[in-house]
Amino acid sequence: MIDTSYKNEREDAQEILRELRELLRQSEDAQERAGPAPVAAMAEPYQTALRTRLGGLHPAEVASVLEALPLDERLIVWDLVKAEHDGDILLEVSDAVRETLIESMDSEELVAATEQLDTDEIADLAPDLPEDVLEDVFQSLSPEEREQLRAAMSYAEDTVGALMDFDMVSVREDVTLEVVTRYLRRLDELPDHTDQVFVVDRTRRLIGALPISKLIVTDLEVAVSDAMSTEVMKLHPDDEAQDAAQKFERYDLVSAAVVDRAGRLVGRVTVNVVVDYIREKTEDEQLAQAGLREEEDIFSSVWDSVKNRWAWLAINLVTAIIASRVIGAFEDSIEKLVALAALMPIVAGIGGNSGNQTITMIVRSIALGQMQNARILFTKEISVALLNGLIWGAILGLVAFWIYDNPDLGLVMTAAMMLNLVLAAVMGVFIPVVLNKLGRDPALGSSVMITAVTDSGGFFIFLGLATLFLV
Amino acid sequence: MIDTSYKNEREDAQEILRELRELLRQSEDAQERAGPAPVAAMAEPYQTALRTRLGGLHPAEVASVLEALPLDERLIVWDLVKAEHDGDILLEVSDAVRETLIESMDSEELVAATEQLDTDEIADLAPDLPEDVLEDVFQSLSPEEREQLRAAMSYAEDTVGALMDFDMVSVREDVTLEVVTRYLRRLDELPDHTDQVFVVDRTRRLIGALPISKLIVTDLEVAVSDAMSTEVMKLHPDDEAQDAAQKFERYDLVSAAVVDRAGRLVGRVTVNVVVDYIREKTEDEQLAQAGLREEEDIFSSVWDSVKNRWAWLAINLVTAIIASRVIGAFEDSIEKLVALAALMPIVAGIGGNSGNQTITMIVRSIALGQMQNARILFTKEISVALLNGLIWGAILGLVAFWIYDNPDLGLVMTAAMMLNLVLAAVMGVFIPVVLNKLGRDPALGSSVMITAVTDSGGFFIFLGLATLFLV
Repeated sequence: MIDTSYKNEREDAQEILRELRELLRQSEDAQERAGPAPVAAMAEPYQTALRTRLGGLHPAEVASVLEALPLDERLIVWDLVKAEHDGDILLEVSDAVRETLIESMDSEELVAATEQLDTDEIADLAPDLPEDVLEDVFQSLSPEEREQLRAAMSYAEDTVGALMDFDMVSVREDVTLEVVTRYLRRLDELPDHTDQVFVVDRTRRLIGALPISKLIVTDLEVAVSDAMSTEVMKLHPDDEAQDAAQKFERYDLVSAAVVDRAGRLVGRVTVNVVVDYIREKTEDEQLAQAGLREEEDIFSSVWDSVKNRWAWLAINLVTAIIASRVIGAFEDSIEKLVALAALMPIVAGIGGNSGNQTITMIVRSIALGQMQNARILFTKEISVALLNGLIWGAILGLVAFWIYDNPDLGLVMTAAMMLNLVLAAVMGVFIPVVLNKLGRDPALGSSVMITAVTDSGGFFIFLGLATLFLV
Repeated sequence: MIDTSYKNEREDAQEILRELRELLRQSEDAQERAGPAPVAAMAEPYQTALRTRLGGLHPAEVASVLEALPLDERLIVWDLVKAEHDGDILLEVSDAVRETLIESMDSEELVAATEQLDTDEIADLAPDLPEDVLEDVFQSLSPEEREQLRAAMSYAEDTVGALMDFDMVSVREDVTLEVVTRYLRRLDELPDHTDQVFVVDRTRRLIGALPISKLIVTDLEVAVSDAMSTEVMKLHPDDEAQDAAQKFERYDLVSAAVVDRAGRLVGRVTVNVVVDYIREKTEDEQLAQAGLREEEDIFSSVWDSVKNRWAWLAINLVTAIIASRVIGAFEDSIEKLVALAALMPIVAGIGGNSGNQTITMIVRSIALGQMQNARILFTKEISVALLNGLIWGAILGLVAFWIYDNPDLGLVMTAAMMLNLVLAAVMGVFIPVVLNKLGRDPALGSSVMITAVTDSGGFFIFLGLATLFLV
């Protein structure tokens, strides 16, 4: 135990994977040597070893193994594990890999897998399930569970409703802690992440919360109403998930109550779900920034990858063609002074980099609610751009002068750099602020836009100045 | 209570900020009208109102208010709040803002602020404290606490040691749950995030854990050894923080034990610290990707911002100059066929975008431990590049043909696109894999490098082909 926990996580995963692939290979070899029997006796021990090894793994570990295996091996492993925790594993794998797993299962298996899950988990899986499977599962639920499932499926992505579960424990305020303790003992085990039980009145309105740690250290004769805390964080199903996550971070919560508009307790959100949400959001943003529509199954087809990546390339193609036409408009000048062709990408490139720095700052300020100081920020970014333009523009001017022995070219270079950096700063503030005003995520798309502006703008400024003063 | 919790977090923060600034303004106005008395009687009520409003806020809320205020207002607010939770607030603000706050405090205030904190928190603050303050604080600690502080300060950033605290509760295995419960009751309150008490033997070796939820639902006569779970997650102070975070995510932990090489319990890590760590890492990465060395205080000087941003701009300047020299080598060709100047940025630009998509995929695969399949990934990325090159190259070839009425130019364009996309794919796999092999974070720097390669490479390929076949 101690030994394995000392290794780092990635090595662990790598090792499990190596072991499993070795077992898989041996099993296949044995099967091959033995001929076409369904499962040859010779392959049997390896299959058993595989099953045992897999049985000892956490569903999350199995999920990461499945994601790291090529499709054929993935389905063999899936066949061996799916009887037990298939529902949990389906929840853990990425969307693309989940598709390949669900495709390999028949309706009966899917219903069995789904039925093991809590209603909030079924709701997470629902979009990927065939209609008839979902119908069967729905029929197998109790009326209360059906109501929960309907509710859970009705909330939009990125809302608290989509994060919440229904595993909360609630008690009444007029009983003693003794009664609460006896009640809890009757449950076989407390739901995961129960750090507090919620206190509700006759109409299920949330009036307080009793932390478990308080329950343990307080005299059992005390009434709930005296031990409970009434300063309770309350979330609403329609709240933005992002804001709820911020509250968990800020107030170090383990769980939080979700109440409806009338203040009635309808569910709870737990920190593990929030952690997953934060991680997923981050990953989505990283993928989106590189123009990947969604996470790719690394073993999916080339065509799937091309489809996942085409939109961004197409947008960039359009902006690149526009920039190209800006250059095209100055072809006469370039023909007369070909040095312009060599120098123009520098002006455009540094402008793009500087603009992206400004955008990163502004996007952060928007997220942190600091935009009441928009004017100060704007002034500062312009000042930074001017100073940077002076510094880097001067250096580049000297470089241009040195290479082409043309002082005027150097001056034009310096002036163009300054102007393009100021343009980058202006647009670097303007683009995310406008996106935000329009209710869009300023982190997405800003980078592509600023690069388009500083490319075309940089070419125009530099070639324009050169045409005016040099040729 | 219910009402405010319905608002989203950012609106809350905005509103608090607006209110506070209004109070500040009124207080300053009153002070001005009253003349130069230290705190004029007329300003007094506003100051009191401000203090009351601030007193009701969570340290994390005060921190975000401080970050959103210009330096002069920030220090007024800080003066009003610092007596109470100054240590906690200092922990919450960003590094840059913390500097401004610490600068405004004298040694005595700093010692008082620091002394309120736990030893693991003091260690977090230590790098920003003056030597003499740290010495004073150290003297005020008990021998055990000094040992803890020394230990906490000895661990490298990004290790489990840097995340851990010493607030764990531990019990012996040979007592009953009754005894444990009585022991816990003697504590005034359990430490935050105590979801389990750790079970240790005579030598403090960790042998199990007793979940609080188990403690509550189990008969009190049962012995700890019978109720505890022996499958305990054990972290080591030298483990990478990132791997520990992955374990919290994967196994939905609230707390985890930290043991030394001999298996002795030395501390614990809690999920709130992990959440903060995940968020910080993400932010650092985002900043680093845009070439910002650290988070900027938005009210810091222009010069501070320029310093924070210069390194990346300098690197990009160098790569841009190299690309420019590649173009310079083909100036004769451009002079003869000036269309080349207009078309070459397209080839370079799309190559950069496609390369960044590949890099994003590979960095993810490395993080998820999927690189045993490196060859499959490599083949796939090359295939995707060839197919994309065919599609987008053909489109661009047609565009070039259409604009310049030159079929050969179109063919060169198509060929150059294909080659540059393949180059982007090869380097997009190669760069992060090599960075990882060298023990560096493949997420950092990859993007700058791939863009440098696809720019210079794209210009070389396109202009080279054009020189061979067109001019």
